[in-house]
Amino acid sequence: MISEDDLIARFFAPIAGEGGLGLRDDAALIAIGADEELVVTSDALAAGVHFFADDPPRSIARKALRVNLSDLAAKGAKPAGFLLSLALPKNWREEWLTAFAEALGQDARGYTCPLLGGDTIQSPDALFLSITAFGTVPRGKMVPRTGARAGDRIYVSGTIGDAAAGLIMRKSAGDKPLDASARDFLVERYLHPQPRLALAPILRARASAAMDVSDGFVGDLTKMLRVSGVSATIDLNRIPLSEPMRAALAADPALFDRLLTGGDDYEILCTVAPDKSDQFEAAAKQAGIDVTAIGTATTGNDLPCFLDRNGTKRTFRRESFSHF
Amino acid sequence: MISEDDLIARFFAPIAGEGGLGLRDDAALIAIGADEELVVTSDALAAGVHFFADDPPRSIARKALRVNLSDLAAKGAKPAGFLLSLALPKNWREEWLTAFAEALGQDARGYTCPLLGGDTIQSPDALFLSITAFGTVPRGKMVPRTGARAGDRIYVSGTIGDAAAGLIMRKSAGDKPLDASARDFLVERYLHPQPRLALAPILRARASAAMDVSDGFVGDLTKMLRVSGVSATIDLNRIPLSEPMRAALAADPALFDRLLTGGDDYEILCTVAPDKSDQFEAAAKQAGIDVTAIGTATTGNDLPCFLDRNGTKRTFRRESFSHF
Repeated sequence: MISEDDLIARFFAPIAGEGGLGLRDDAALIAIGADEELVVTSDALAAGVHFFADDPPRSIARKALRVNLSDLAAKGAKPAGFLLSLALPKNWREEWLTAFAEALGQDARGYTCPLLGGDTIQSPDALFLSITAFGTVPRGKMVPRTGARAGDRIYVSGTIGDAAAGLIMRKSAGDKPLDASARDFLVERYLHPQPRLALAPILRARASAAMDVSDGFVGDLTKMLRVSGVSATIDLNRIPLSEPMRAALAADPALFDRLLTGGDDYEILCTVAPDKSDQFEAAAKQAGIDVTAIGTATTGNDLPCFLDRNGTKRTFRRESFSHF
Repeated sequence: MISEDDLIARFFAPIAGEGGLGLRDDAALIAIGADEELVVTSDALAAGVHFFADDPPRSIARKALRVNLSDLAAKGAKPAGFLLSLALPKNWREEWLTAFAEALGQDARGYTCPLLGGDTIQSPDALFLSITAFGTVPRGKMVPRTGARAGDRIYVSGTIGDAAAGLIMRKSAGDKPLDASARDFLVERYLHPQPRLALAPILRARASAAMDVSDGFVGDLTKMLRVSGVSATIDLNRIPLSEPMRAALAADPALFDRLLTGGDDYEILCTVAPDKSDQFEAAAKQAGIDVTAIGTATTGNDLPCFLDRNGTKRTFRRESFSHF
């Protein structure tokens, strides 16, 4: 039996940032410069839905924070801190929470995004957590999801589909079409998203619209185009794929649809006006982040047109992961 | 089957505020004046822990927002908006969500605290929700929990214990020592907290420390004194009680300990320097909020001394509600 205050003092106070007032208050303060705006985002994760209850606590902590940092990166924001709501199942163990808090603290320091506060409650059953992350942008400079214009080039960062393949590997431990290192790479991509924060200032300077790919490339792209009031033509042959993903595809070509709709990529999808695309590519290269032009935004409200390697139009039965 | 976007567009977009960008982005923007600071607070609620799964959806929505507004009030902050993380059980029904969103929208308008965004996911089992609320204070003016000084008068707003008694009534529908209207009053106090936002500017101007009473008066007071580095003497005879609470106590005097430790009051507990207490009382009266002086902060780190009507020192076996 431990009180909530003792639990916070023991596990979370050591990793808290200054604005969190040592986590001894009901609230936290966020300092914002006069020429800045605050970007806020919230992502919830539940055991059995977003991760496996027996995933390592360090991985759960990292994923919970990083999916929020990925949203901040897509908006062009610099992390300023976060709040954690944690519902612990009755049978929580001290070693579990120690590892969870340690990894969260490491990421908070690594991404300069301090823990400012939150709430810890007992869950009636499964582990559930929700993180609200704060970021700052120069006033008026948040990169919207709605700004794509016909003629813009469409880019994605990194590689697509690794996490979806990693999830399949994670589920089917017995079935091993890949060598161990390829498999480990894909599972690692599923467990530990890499928020593309180095891209944030570049998006602010050059992108017309951006979002992170979290629920599947096809569905997320469709979403961004719809709210921007444009369509697009996408060259599926240009979708960037990792070597392990190519190996997995060689073993099972049917994976292709899964990787485009599976979710958990946490890569940046953005649009850039043609006259800014050279500068965008050069700046991304300088920042050490791969970006790939995969198509062009077009006029109209049609669903995006996906062309395969033969120039044949493709549709997807299921565009993205959906809870409902 | 409904997509998360359709669910948001249908139930939540109609109640969203401007900074929420129509809930069509991953993030929201919060505007803060150059002379202001942002106060953030987060409270999580789970079915079966903080409310009954069969409580009316309108009541669950109101309670989830109001417990956060209560924290803002205690910090002297003015509401600026909120994010909602909602984990819906698989068997969620349209009528339920319609009623939930309507009541949330009514409160958001009533308290001028717009919905700015959030996340909606499927829960593996129970309903779970977490609200992060934002408020603004003039720079440097947040009322801390840590500022109580020896000699300060200790005040509470409203009446204490109604919600704890209401919860007991809610649980024991068969046992009816009270008349229906007294019973309804207490259950209403449990279901629908009244955040004391009208007290916020008065706390900023006059209080040395404040917090809201959410986990039980005795425990929360002890907490505030401890982080302020003081002790206190409390006159239990001065604890403000409602008429229905007095009737319930007459029927069952053993309730007294429960009401002081039961939680869910969402009243303001604060300390005020003696030379400011007349102005504090006058301003609260002007704002239409009852405040009662119940004791005095004293030097030292002892647990607070609670004196009953005979001047006998009381202790409490269990100071407050705790999850762990």
